[in-house]
Amino acid sequence: MPTATKNKAKSGSKSSKTKYVYFFGAGKAEGKAEMKQLLGGKGANLAEMTNIGVPVPGGFTLTTETCAEFYKNNKQWPAGLEQQVKENIVKLEKAMGAKFGDRHNPLLVSVRSGAAVSMPGMMDTVLNLGLNPDVVQGLIVKTENERFAWDSYRRFIQMFGDVVMNVPHDDFEHILEKKKADLGIELDTDLSANDLKEIVRKYKEVYTKHTGEEFPNDAFEQLKKSINAVFISWNNPRAEKYRQIYEIRGLLGTAVTCQAMVYGNMGDTSGTGVCFTRNPSTGENKFYGEYLVNAQGEDVVAGIRTPEPISVLEDKWPKIYKQLDALRTRLENHYKDMQDIEFTIQEGKLYILQTRNGKRTGAAGVRIAVELVKEKKITQDQAILRVDPKSLDQLLHPTFDPKQKKNAIGKGLPASPGAATGKAVFSADDAEALAAKGEPVILVRIETSPEDIGGMNVAEGILTARGGMTSHAAVVARGMGTCCVSGAPEVKIDYAKKQFSCGGVTVKEGDWVSLDGSLGEIYAGKLDTVTAQMTGAFGTLMKWADAARTLKIRTNADTPNDAHVARGFGAEGIGLCRTEHMFFEGDRIIAVREMILANDLKGREAALAKLLPMQRGDFEGIFKAMNGLPVTIRLLDPPLHEFLPHEEGNQRQMAEVMKVSIDIVKEKVHKLHEFNPMLGHRGCRLGITYPEIYKMQVRAIIEAACNVKKAGIKVLPEIMIPLIGTKKELEILKADAIQVIDEVFKAKGFKIPYMIGTMIEIPRAAVIADSVAEVAEFFSFGTNDLTQMMFGYSRDDAGAFIGEYLNQGILEKDPFQTIDENGVGQIMRMGVERGRSTRKDLKVGICGEHGGDPASVDFCHRIGMNYVSCSPYRVPIARLAAAQAVVRAKKKKK
Amino acid sequence: MPTATKNKAKSGSKSSKTKYVYFFGAGKAEGKAEMKQLLGGKGANLAEMTNIGVPVPGGFTLTTETCAEFYKNNKQWPAGLEQQVKENIVKLEKAMGAKFGDRHNPLLVSVRSGAAVSMPGMMDTVLNLGLNPDVVQGLIVKTENERFAWDSYRRFIQMFGDVVMNVPHDDFEHILEKKKADLGIELDTDLSANDLKEIVRKYKEVYTKHTGEEFPNDAFEQLKKSINAVFISWNNPRAEKYRQIYEIRGLLGTAVTCQAMVYGNMGDTSGTGVCFTRNPSTGENKFYGEYLVNAQGEDVVAGIRTPEPISVLEDKWPKIYKQLDALRTRLENHYKDMQDIEFTIQEGKLYILQTRNGKRTGAAGVRIAVELVKEKKITQDQAILRVDPKSLDQLLHPTFDPKQKKNAIGKGLPASPGAATGKAVFSADDAEALAAKGEPVILVRIETSPEDIGGMNVAEGILTARGGMTSHAAVVARGMGTCCVSGAPEVKIDYAKKQFSCGGVTVKEGDWVSLDGSLGEIYAGKLDTVTAQMTGAFGTLMKWADAARTLKIRTNADTPNDAHVARGFGAEGIGLCRTEHMFFEGDRIIAVREMILANDLKGREAALAKLLPMQRGDFEGIFKAMNGLPVTIRLLDPPLHEFLPHEEGNQRQMAEVMKVSIDIVKEKVHKLHEFNPMLGHRGCRLGITYPEIYKMQVRAIIEAACNVKKAGIKVLPEIMIPLIGTKKELEILKADAIQVIDEVFKAKGFKIPYMIGTMIEIPRAAVIADSVAEVAEFFSFGTNDLTQMMFGYSRDDAGAFIGEYLNQGILEKDPFQTIDENGVGQIMRMGVERGRSTRKDLKVGICGEHGGDPASVDFCHRIGMNYVSCSPYRVPIARLAAAQAVVRAKKKKK
Repeated sequence: MPTATKNKAKSGSKSSKTKYVYFFGAGKAEGKAEMKQLLGGKGANLAEMTNIGVPVPGGFTLTTETCAEFYKNNKQWPAGLEQQVKENIVKLEKAMGAKFGDRHNPLLVSVRSGAAVSMPGMMDTVLNLGLNPDVVQGLIVKTENERFAWDSYRRFIQMFGDVVMNVPHDDFEHILEKKKADLGIELDTDLSANDLKEIVRKYKEVYTKHTGEEFPNDAFEQLKKSINAVFISWNNPRAEKYRQIYEIRGLLGTAVTCQAMVYGNMGDTSGTGVCFTRNPSTGENKFYGEYLVNAQGEDVVAGIRTPEPISVLEDKWPKIYKQLDALRTRLENHYKDMQDIEFTIQEGKLYILQTRNGKRTGAAGVRIAVELVKEKKITQDQAILRVDPKSLDQLLHPTFDPKQKKNAIGKGLPASPGAATGKAVFSADDAEALAAKGEPVILVRIETSPEDIGGMNVAEGILTARGGMTSHAAVVARGMGTCCVSGAPEVKIDYAKKQFSCGGVTVKEGDWVSLDGSLGEIYAGKLDTVTAQMTGAFGTLMKWADAARTLKIRTNADTPNDAHVARGFGAEGIGLCRTEHMFFEGDRIIAVREMILANDLKGREAALAKLLPMQRGDFEGIFKAMNGLPVTIRLLDPPLHEFLPHEEGNQRQMAEVMKVSIDIVKEKVHKLHEFNPMLGHRGCRLGITYPEIYKMQVRAIIEAACNVKKAGIKVLPEIMIPLIGTKKELEILKADAIQVIDEVFKAKGFKIPYMIGTMIEIPRAAVIADSVAEVAEFFSFGTNDLTQMMFGYSRDDAGAFIGEYLNQGILEKDPFQTIDENGVGQIMRMGVERGRSTRKDLKVGICGEHGGDPASVDFCHRIGMNYVSCSPYRVPIARLAAAQAVVRAKKKKK
Repeated sequence: MPTATKNKAKSGSKSSKTKYVYFFGAGKAEGKAEMKQLLGGKGANLAEMTNIGVPVPGGFTLTTETCAEFYKNNKQWPAGLEQQVKENIVKLEKAMGAKFGDRHNPLLVSVRSGAAVSMPGMMDTVLNLGLNPDVVQGLIVKTENERFAWDSYRRFIQMFGDVVMNVPHDDFEHILEKKKADLGIELDTDLSANDLKEIVRKYKEVYTKHTGEEFPNDAFEQLKKSINAVFISWNNPRAEKYRQIYEIRGLLGTAVTCQAMVYGNMGDTSGTGVCFTRNPSTGENKFYGEYLVNAQGEDVVAGIRTPEPISVLEDKWPKIYKQLDALRTRLENHYKDMQDIEFTIQEGKLYILQTRNGKRTGAAGVRIAVELVKEKKITQDQAILRVDPKSLDQLLHPTFDPKQKKNAIGKGLPASPGAATGKAVFSADDAEALAAKGEPVILVRIETSPEDIGGMNVAEGILTARGGMTSHAAVVARGMGTCCVSGAPEVKIDYAKKQFSCGGVTVKEGDWVSLDGSLGEIYAGKLDTVTAQMTGAFGTLMKWADAARTLKIRTNADTPNDAHVARGFGAEGIGLCRTEHMFFEGDRIIAVREMILANDLKGREAALAKLLPMQRGDFEGIFKAMNGLPVTIRLLDPPLHEFLPHEEGNQRQMAEVMKVSIDIVKEKVHKLHEFNPMLGHRGCRLGITYPEIYKMQVRAIIEAACNVKKAGIKVLPEIMIPLIGTKKELEILKADAIQVIDEVFKAKGFKIPYMIGTMIEIPRAAVIADSVAEVAEFFSFGTNDLTQMMFGYSRDDAGAFIGEYLNQGILEKDPFQTIDENGVGQIMRMGVERGRSTRKDLKVGICGEHGGDPASVDFCHRIGMNYVSCSPYRVPIARLAAAQAVVRAKKKKK
């Protein structure tokens, strides 16, 4: 039938000559690492390992094309496939010295899925394939372990029944549970060989009941059905959903790898273990790992028997050890990274089951990367890319001593990293009072507000029931480098009783409580913390990063102390010094409130005159700390009502201090109340309606700068006007500022260099950046507010839906943590381009929370910013991320 | 000195041959209307009138170039100027038959500024120039009015002293006031000729004291100094500020016009009057005006004597009347619009002092424009441009009978036009109760919230102490076509006492109060209203507009009644039907609150099942009203807490109705509280977290559509999903909707056409419009929210600074009233372009408040939208504005 053949060819089906199956084993593989698309990740890796002489158990891989053909062909094997599979089985039998379905020397295999892109756990697997009642007998002889043989058969029937034939999993489990109940035992391991034999019988009955056929004894039939089941699992709803969420497209299907099973529990010449080519905790270049004789992989994990360190192997089985040690070097040289290797010794023969880049601590990551460069295995650029910047966090913050027992009572968001332990208090005032006695405190609040700043400042850690990763508590805590867990809804706080309950535990005022701000965990009781040592490798890596990067890294710092810390971490200036926090300190709040209560300009000016010397003093301290580096100071940003108390008790107290009636306080609070304070009377809008406030601040900045200059300090103040939405706002406020500055210069008799710029945080400002840049000498993107307005999300309220949005994949990442490149990023790019269209040398930076997020730093580099600014503890992270951005761009160019 | 001459030429100075002065008078002028840049607006207009045979008092204009030369020349007259001025004086004397500085037949002149762009009141003027003691005597003989002559001289000295020589204005006033005090009189007019003569003496003393010189008697000296003063006033701080604010740039300077003074009070053959070429109230083509014999212009205005109607003139001075009537025709033919003409008759000779396009009522404007077309004086396109769309408002809303006395006690913002009178009530419940008794009510609130909707719906008018032009009260009132005055801070409301005070008057519950929503005025007492008649001309104009425009005009309507009204006004569909208002009506709020209180999906679905038939009924009513026209329905938008009561009393009431404890209500309110509800859990975010709500709404829409279709109604529902910020939100919600729709179609056994689209109101959505349009079948720009987020202004809070922003020229217009083209507009344009880049035939409209603003309608036309949607009463405005947009674009092309 030549016509039919022709049609077949036309329809795109493969001819019988197509190579569907790729063999690996006995030191040679038909595939290689680069054939991921065809062989799937697993198949390609097994081929690669085989090729470089790693003794992996042999096997063969059915290509992803085979899967596609299978579907095209109405879920039938394409012509020629059966022949190829059978040929490969023969090859495999030869390689493994065993025979498929043979009762004397049986070859058992696993059948696994493996697409070009990893989809962990989404598709099906069958193990121990090749068993039947005869083969079980052979296995008993071979392993001298009757129980193992029957248990393997039992597992195989259950897996095959479930995966291949859709026999309800529960029906099998029910038999197992009933047997245990009848025997009065609890663990599967307490079942004897005879018990298992009995269970196998019952399993087969269930199988027959559901499928209408006998459980297959023929190994090839078992194999064929299992392969088909894996192909079909490619399109199960779970896998489809997964591909949809992660936008995995353009794949042909899954490959299927059939691999010889090996067993570490075949007696005293067998064993199994896990090893790392270097120490994954410290990074030390020393073989590290452990193994168990006569055991399976799961025995190592289960912890019933204590494994031996790998060094013992050297004495016990020196040949195997030598072989393993040689593989350690070979694998590291090949993959150029520390490897996590799973191995099994079956009857004196070593098999490598898996190798992959090993997980490691932050410190180990840095050390390994640096030492690999010194060993000339990788380049400096590669080392820079090798370390996840976020992992540096661990190196910079204290952590809990891992040896102690921890009793986690609840979980919130990991809002600000580090570990903290202290006595619970429930108000900022109590925090200050207890801290003044030298006690470590943990401040516990439903949510925090700027009124709490004093208490937050003295607390070891902060816990809030409400608020997201960018809530007030989280932002301030990160800025302070203080550990914080936010948004822990299980934490029920009772302010009246001064206690909270969580996870069934009630913590009263004064009780010890501990927080892990890196994990978001809450513990009852006191825990010991340890400060991670900074190794020399860390310094080396940072040096390389600094040499590579072009972005400057500044810090967000409001106090001389923050500034010192950040400078220690390598900050090259202050990108955001918020002035409002200064308004809360000590008695200043009284003057601030006087200003707010004043009915006229004169009254406001009198109050501001009291604040002037205090602000000037703040700035002098900061300028001294940053000697020689630029300092960007943002003029007052929050709405005035944030400086007034909202609880009646505090209002009464304020009224007493201010010597006015509480009604006046209440009326002012009422008058200043806003429905959407985020979009209200704040930022430069205050500067326009109350020019005297900004004038005072500008005077304080410039007088401070002149004063420290006289003391020999090099000072570079950059005055930043927030919330600009129109060019005219900036024109007016810049003119106001220059007037004050010129007055100060005249009075002092000398000048200092300064700049006046703006934040770009209102979407409109980014759109009209060309005209804003006619006035602004620098831009600093306020990505927090910009994200809020571009998305229409209130940071404080988005918690109600943002979790669901991340779950459903509506948002890939929390846009308050990583800049949303598609939306917010577009407008930022526009802002930079348009700004530089009218002012070529415009200095552009970012001072939102995103400045410490590696992906966001990369984006800032790509759109040509000059610097990013982040909280002190994130400076090293940003330095590394900025270097990675350069290296990545270099790679792309190539 | 040839070198010097050369240098002079090089420096750009004009040679002595430059023509600095342009004459007009005796029926001929050297200038014309097109020479505005050179002669200023005033000079060019006077020349134009002279040229077309209008008898204006003669004069001459010094060019704007002269002003520039004056400044270049160190504030000296350029060579040749004095000669030219003197020649023009001679010409003027000849034209006027009088002599400058002559005591027998004196020529007096005025000296006025006039730049190319009008800057009203910014620069200086001197009147009655040419007087001295001798000339005064001549004037007495000529006018037979000694008092007039001395008063003119007094005024001249004061004006010259003040304007030209900077003698403090107060010093003159002091003399005048002292004299009146000495005489025990109050009015200037009670001063006798002798008193004025005495004052002249004292004025001259003051003059000499301040200037060190005698008051000049020489007319030319007076003239020269006055001209210089006007030149100098070009750069006074007031004028500079004005040019800065209005961004008037590129002008050479001001022109100066010297014009013969004429007097209507020179005896019984003199007189003065004002006339309109058509009736400015009705537009009727009938000569209209009034005059006074032997009087000055200010006497007509002052109202001490009652002027005669212009028709009397016909009998009295038929020759003058005939001349005036001929000018009426000539001026209208020339300017092609109804003219407002000021004239003076000096000793039997008619002079026209000014003609300009006359102000008119909305109705007159329409009639005049239409009749001018019928008279073939202007084209239809010109008529379309001639009527200010906003003026149509008057034709559509009731107004107060202008004859009655009105006692305005306060002023707020003109939030929603019309006039209303009713009894004051202070809560929505009271409003409903009183209205149920058939009483007209005015609802008075500090501010309104969605809870007040029932009361707002029955009120004749709404008054709020707080909130801007786009506050809740304003937006809802405009939507309802209900008169509203918002943001009246003087209105002090005492809910407890059920009263408010304003302007010293206290209005108690049940007292009559009236509101003018077009002016923003508040009146105590009851006022009569009249409904303006729609003339046939209105219909004609609308017909022309409809023929011209390409934009469709839809309406925002939430009820069948709104829909009917809007259809009557020519709406071509509903562009925004808000569904949340439906949630408040009658008992529905109970079911809504049940849904909110429910703890699980089942509970919510049960409550929603109760709402379904009610919503379906609403939609059926609306679909019937809009038979054949598209109806865009927006799914639920506001955050859920808007449906819960916030005052304790109401919470208690709700708890009783719902049969739960008040604590449960309070806890829910607390849980749903948001810091920035504008940016909170609302719009499609509700649809994502509670899909059952949108599903119920979609079901109600489609079931209603199917039901009315069966009844023979043509139905075109467009389902609009609000607050989309990502493509995925829309994908999920569209899929949800389609699932429900297909269920309904299956159950009904037939299908209807429908569309699913989105609002573009989140800035991010506009930026990623290309990908949103892959899912959305239409876009509707929600410009209210888009403006809020692009500017970062909360509509409810911006009142605190937006006034100051408008005052200081930071904002040219309130961006909530007129689309901010530079900022918000750019992102809208981007949204339209990007949307159509992936969906070519994407239907695009706008449904914010801006849909009824003419400038915004023009913008929407320019960026290629398909329709605008506005409140019912604004539909005719939008129709006209859309036509104007087309005509304007046509003109631009030419």
